[in-house]
Amino acid sequence: MTSWESFQSNLFHNEEVGLWIDGSFMGMQSEYRNRHAQAMENALLAMLELENGAIANTDEGRMVGHYWLRAPERAPTHEITTAIEATIEKISAFTAAVHSGAIRPTPDTTFKSFLLIGIGGSALGPQFISDALEQSSDPLTPHFLDNTDPDGIDKLLSRIDLHRCLVIVISKSGSTKETRNGMLEVQNAFAAHNLTFAHHAVAITGDGSALDKTALAEGWLERFPMWDWVGGRTSVTSAVGLLPAALQGIAIRPMLAGAATMDRITRLPTMADNPAALMALLWHHGCHGRGDKDMVMLPYKDRLLLFSRYLQQLIMESLGKELDRNGVSVHQGLTVYGNKGSTDQHAYVQQLRDGVDNFFVTFIEVLKDRDQRSMEVEPHTTSGDYLFGFLYGTREALNERGRRSMTITIKEISPFSIGALIALFERTVGLYAEILNINAYHQPGVEAGKLAAGEILQLQQAVRQWCSKHPGCNPDPAVLAKDLQAPGKEPLIFAILRRDAP
Amino acid sequence: MTSWESFQSNLFHNEEVGLWIDGSFMGMQSEYRNRHAQAMENALLAMLELENGAIANTDEGRMVGHYWLRAPERAPTHEITTAIEATIEKISAFTAAVHSGAIRPTPDTTFKSFLLIGIGGSALGPQFISDALEQSSDPLTPHFLDNTDPDGIDKLLSRIDLHRCLVIVISKSGSTKETRNGMLEVQNAFAAHNLTFAHHAVAITGDGSALDKTALAEGWLERFPMWDWVGGRTSVTSAVGLLPAALQGIAIRPMLAGAATMDRITRLPTMADNPAALMALLWHHGCHGRGDKDMVMLPYKDRLLLFSRYLQQLIMESLGKELDRNGVSVHQGLTVYGNKGSTDQHAYVQQLRDGVDNFFVTFIEVLKDRDQRSMEVEPHTTSGDYLFGFLYGTREALNERGRRSMTITIKEISPFSIGALIALFERTVGLYAEILNINAYHQPGVEAGKLAAGEILQLQQAVRQWCSKHPGCNPDPAVLAKDLQAPGKEPLIFAILRRDAP
Repeated sequence: MTSWESFQSNLFHNEEVGLWIDGSFMGMQSEYRNRHAQAMENALLAMLELENGAIANTDEGRMVGHYWLRAPERAPTHEITTAIEATIEKISAFTAAVHSGAIRPTPDTTFKSFLLIGIGGSALGPQFISDALEQSSDPLTPHFLDNTDPDGIDKLLSRIDLHRCLVIVISKSGSTKETRNGMLEVQNAFAAHNLTFAHHAVAITGDGSALDKTALAEGWLERFPMWDWVGGRTSVTSAVGLLPAALQGIAIRPMLAGAATMDRITRLPTMADNPAALMALLWHHGCHGRGDKDMVMLPYKDRLLLFSRYLQQLIMESLGKELDRNGVSVHQGLTVYGNKGSTDQHAYVQQLRDGVDNFFVTFIEVLKDRDQRSMEVEPHTTSGDYLFGFLYGTREALNERGRRSMTITIKEISPFSIGALIALFERTVGLYAEILNINAYHQPGVEAGKLAAGEILQLQQAVRQWCSKHPGCNPDPAVLAKDLQAPGKEPLIFAILRRDAP
Repeated sequence: MTSWESFQSNLFHNEEVGLWIDGSFMGMQSEYRNRHAQAMENALLAMLELENGAIANTDEGRMVGHYWLRAPERAPTHEITTAIEATIEKISAFTAAVHSGAIRPTPDTTFKSFLLIGIGGSALGPQFISDALEQSSDPLTPHFLDNTDPDGIDKLLSRIDLHRCLVIVISKSGSTKETRNGMLEVQNAFAAHNLTFAHHAVAITGDGSALDKTALAEGWLERFPMWDWVGGRTSVTSAVGLLPAALQGIAIRPMLAGAATMDRITRLPTMADNPAALMALLWHHGCHGRGDKDMVMLPYKDRLLLFSRYLQQLIMESLGKELDRNGVSVHQGLTVYGNKGSTDQHAYVQQLRDGVDNFFVTFIEVLKDRDQRSMEVEPHTTSGDYLFGFLYGTREALNERGRRSMTITIKEISPFSIGALIALFERTVGLYAEILNINAYHQPGVEAGKLAAGEILQLQQAVRQWCSKHPGCNPDPAVLAKDLQAPGKEPLIFAILRRDAP
């Protein structure tokens, strides 16, 4: 077989979903594919069980149902099917009413923007979709509040006309502190403008959560559900992603169709036909099945700038686990970073080509340049030709030095293709985790930081009380640590005092 | 010595520049410090030689003079001193004239926004500064074009009123293709609006470059210099960073003063007094002096979101080198990624705590929360208290698992502190490179990708000519590769044909 024949036989292509995956620069031999064929077969079966309603997230005793969100008929119960369909209908109806002005903040104003308050899975997906599919004709301008930084909140609010702003508060548990704080700060700003927050607010949250109760009690405009069988980092095709997208003017049915089509393809049992299986194996090969290489995401398209930030959560929170399902310590993971090409070439391709060989690249190519015909920047050459040349040129330059890469090609940026991309990576993560035998759907490591933060806030209260009882006293961390019975906490007390110093 | 005494003696603090560095969670013992004391002494001496005008970038035969930009009197010649001072004056005068309306695009309009066209060092620093120091009262709204993506250009231009937009084209060589393309596309848009581009345009470029000649010939509003002794990734305190900052309304003298103050401190010969020497050694310890750990940048402040993207270039392009100065193959580097806290906690702290231990974290804390007094989100607790708690809580949670971190604390976000932060990292990179004995000031690896891209564009032309000569013919990459005498290029020809397919 010539190298060209080999290239052709290994190139993944599916016309229906508009996707190619070229793994020829990953150095994976067919022997590797064969060696892992049985593991992949098992992984695909496990994914089918998951899709049929198995308690795939065993630690939390939950089903994992994000694939049902774009194929409600596949849900394990009629109730779930109905709930999904009803929610999509509700989103469409609510959005139409906002756009038509039937739902409005006051009789004489309509909504012109929205402010999404959320963090992690409740912001990264919506932000990515918003930026990827923004059009100048969008009926509502999107804003995102994704932190508990007071100055960041002020900076954002200074840009928003609250009179015409719809606020979407998203928290599955309803108790995420950053989101709660953001909501309180925004409510405060509404009150300062003599505006009734409830006339501007909707909630997306779990049934009966603290947020749900608040929204109900205060008579917010609407409440949308988050189900316990949808994880935060895979919630982008639930109301979490659909409501802000629809409000911005993005067609959500095609987005769901793109995801559903990709789901169908990524269920196929033959690896050659299944792009998620292929990608999962390329990841496995690329980082030796243990995360010892980073994945650099380089989409050559400005609209995909936030994709890597979205993937950081989807991939790192899913795969970054201490234990496998047998309780064996494995310290797994796959580090993701990157922004966009060719811009990033001018930042760190120097290191990628010459420096530490601690990565593989995932290039993303988009065939369509723009809506209109392009001008020529040189005879017979357009800006888009250059973008194309830089992608393939960088790939060659890295390959010359043995740096590995795969290339994903899609036809265009559209709701359909974005839905498909999301579903491709969701399924790849699922399959890869099955091969590693880890639970991709829990996050046992994130509680520790929250608990530690809670203890620090308690210590802060104690320090402040001490200071208020000792006015004019120059507090010494060593003294306070003794007085407050907090041995070893002197450095923290020092940090608390430093921050509170006038 | 108690652990508290040890903490105190190792904590770096300088009140003048408003900086603390806590390296206590990096696990570096004083023995390590002693072992590298001589190397650090040599590195500091090398930096003094560099500052005195040595040809520190030997490969390119250039001086490395970015430190003179904020202390012109230290430049090795009177001409350079005068050129720096004159340029700062020119920037101030030009900016004042734009703000007052003395310089305007037409008699009946004034400038209300600017569009910076640049990539790499000509965009990353300006973008970071713009976002970090934005105020709602800014006289001009900033926009950035940093790629050759046709759709990205259209998306950006759809948001800009060109009638009132000043265009800043930045390219040191004047021949960067992405920037040239962006400029041509923007010129095209101006022409489509019947606007005279030259009445809106300024250039920042090397004397006599292609861009410089164009600007002169077409009578652009103004030209500002880039000197060959300023590298792109350290050009942010030259006109590259100063002009857009000043136009946006940022006080550039305090920014330069912050950098100058930090430069003064980071020249000090005693490691305990020199934060850059301390940080360089912490990096060395953290990645074993060979880049085998990534540096995760986690500033807990929305305004520092783009800092890591700026640092990716400053650090990875400077340190990611194949050869040391003796020509020994070392494949050095230090991978940088991260966005902001606490947001990123909800994305990948799961992996940082539980997964692959392939990183150390640099936390950045900012003491000042916001301009106004904060509301309470719980009794006696503010949003900012939570931000503080999450930073220190995450640090604790990572430390419990042996994951290392350092914490940089600054008082506030201001032109002075941003200038100081930039200078701190510039000097740290310089010192660290000296310890590794690598040239931090060249980028020999970036040419290969550009050359390969040029060859691909040539191949594309050849393929298109072939197709125009064979109308109606379904082209076969194997046939074209033979016809065009491009053996082995079938996959590239396939990609070219796929992109051009109707």
